[in-house]
Amino acid sequence: MRLYTYFRSSAAYRVRIALELKGIAWEPAFVHLLREGGQQHKPDYAALSPMRLVPALVTDEGAVLTQSLAILEWLEETHPTPALLPADPVQRAQVRAFAATIACDIHPIGNLRVLRYLKREMGQSQEAIDTWYRHWIDVALPALEAMAGEGPFCYGLAPTLADVYLVPQLFNARRYNCDLGTFPRLLRAEAACQALPAFQAAAPAAQPDAE
Amino acid sequence: MRLYTYFRSSAAYRVRIALELKGIAWEPAFVHLLREGGQQHKPDYAALSPMRLVPALVTDEGAVLTQSLAILEWLEETHPTPALLPADPVQRAQVRAFAATIACDIHPIGNLRVLRYLKREMGQSQEAIDTWYRHWIDVALPALEAMAGEGPFCYGLAPTLADVYLVPQLFNARRYNCDLGTFPRLLRAEAACQALPAFQAAAPAAQPDAE
Repeated sequence: MRLYTYFRSSAAYRVRIALELKGIAWEPAFVHLLREGGQQHKPDYAALSPMRLVPALVTDEGAVLTQSLAILEWLEETHPTPALLPADPVQRAQVRAFAATIACDIHPIGNLRVLRYLKREMGQSQEAIDTWYRHWIDVALPALEAMAGEGPFCYGLAPTLADVYLVPQLFNARRYNCDLGTFPRLLRAEAACQALPAFQAAAPAAQPDAE
Repeated sequence: MRLYTYFRSSAAYRVRIALELKGIAWEPAFVHLLREGGQQHKPDYAALSPMRLVPALVTDEGAVLTQSLAILEWLEETHPTPALLPADPVQRAQVRAFAATIACDIHPIGNLRVLRYLKREMGQSQEAIDTWYRHWIDVALPALEAMAGEGPFCYGLAPTLADVYLVPQLFNARRYNCDLGTFPRLLRAEAACQALPAFQAAAPAAQPDAE
C-alpha cells in the first residue's frame, strides 16, 4: 500500500500506527504541507484527495481512500488481526467515542488551515493562536481522562483505536506546551504505547521526511 | 432508548435520522444549549457526556453512548437493517470518508463553542464570524460534490451515513446563506432524503423543543 503522509500530520501519524500494529507493508509518498505553498494543493494530489488533506491511502488494488477515520475502519475490516476495536458493541462505541473526541473536538480546530485563517484573515497574533490551540486541548483532556478505562492502554491490555488517536494528539499537545501533569490514565496509556515497536516506527521523528 | 437532543444540533439531528430510518423507538430528553448558560454544562448532563456536547444516547440496557459518530456505528452494528453502510469495504470507506469530511472538516469548526470563542476571546465581529462559518462550508462542499456517487442518494438507491451527515449540514449551510447552487449531486441527494418520512420526522422543525 502507498500512504500519502507528512511526518508531523497527526492524522497521517494515526494511520502509520495502525499499519505498523497490523504488520502491513506500506511505502510512503511524501506531501510537504508547507513547501511550495503546500504540496497538498497540487493538482495531482487534489485529484486523489478532494479536501487536499493528508493522509490518503492507495490500496494494493488501486483504490484511493481518504480521511484517517475511514482509512482506519477499512484497515480494521480488511486486516482484522490484531484487532483495534473490542468485540462488544458498547465497548466498541466507547473506544470510538474516545477517538472521535480527538478526531472531531480537538484536532480539526487546531489544524494548519484553521490556524492560518486566524492569522491571515482574522489578524490574530501568534500568542493568541497558541492560546486558542491549547484551549481546545485543555477542554478535552479532562474528558478523555474521564472516558479512559482500565490500563495499561486506554482500554485494557492491548492498544485500540483510542490509543492510535491519543498518541499523536499528546505529541501535538507537547509541541504547544500543554500541561499534561494531571492525566495519569492518558500518560500511562501513552507510555504503554511508546514501548511498542509499532508506535516507535510510526513516530514523526522516525519518518524519512522528518526535519 | 433515550436521546439527549437539541433541535438545532447538527450532531443530534444525525442520530435522530438514523433512529428513524431504522425504525427504533426512542424518547427525547431535551438539552437546551443556550438556556441557563447552556444546560449541557449542568452536572447531571456532564456526568453522562464528559465533553458536555449533545447528543448522548442511553440504550435500553442503560449504557450511555456519546459522540454521534460512535453512536451511529453502534446503531449500525446492533440494528443492521436497513443498512446505512454498503457491504463492500472500499465502498464503506468512501461513505465514511464523506461523512468524516462533514464530521471533522466542517462541523467542529462552526460549532457553538468555537463561534463563542471567536466572539468573546478574540473579539471578532458577527460579520467576521459568519464569514468564517461560511468559509469552511465553501471549502468542503466542492470536495463533497466530487466525492458523491451515483444517485439519487449520495451513494446509490438508498440513504447511507453520507446522507445522514449531509442533510443536517445543508440545513446549517442554509441558515448561514451559503451558495448551494453549484452542487447538483448534493442537492439531488438532499431532495431524495427529504421525501422520506424518517428525515421529515428527524428535522429540527419537527422536534418538540423547536423554537
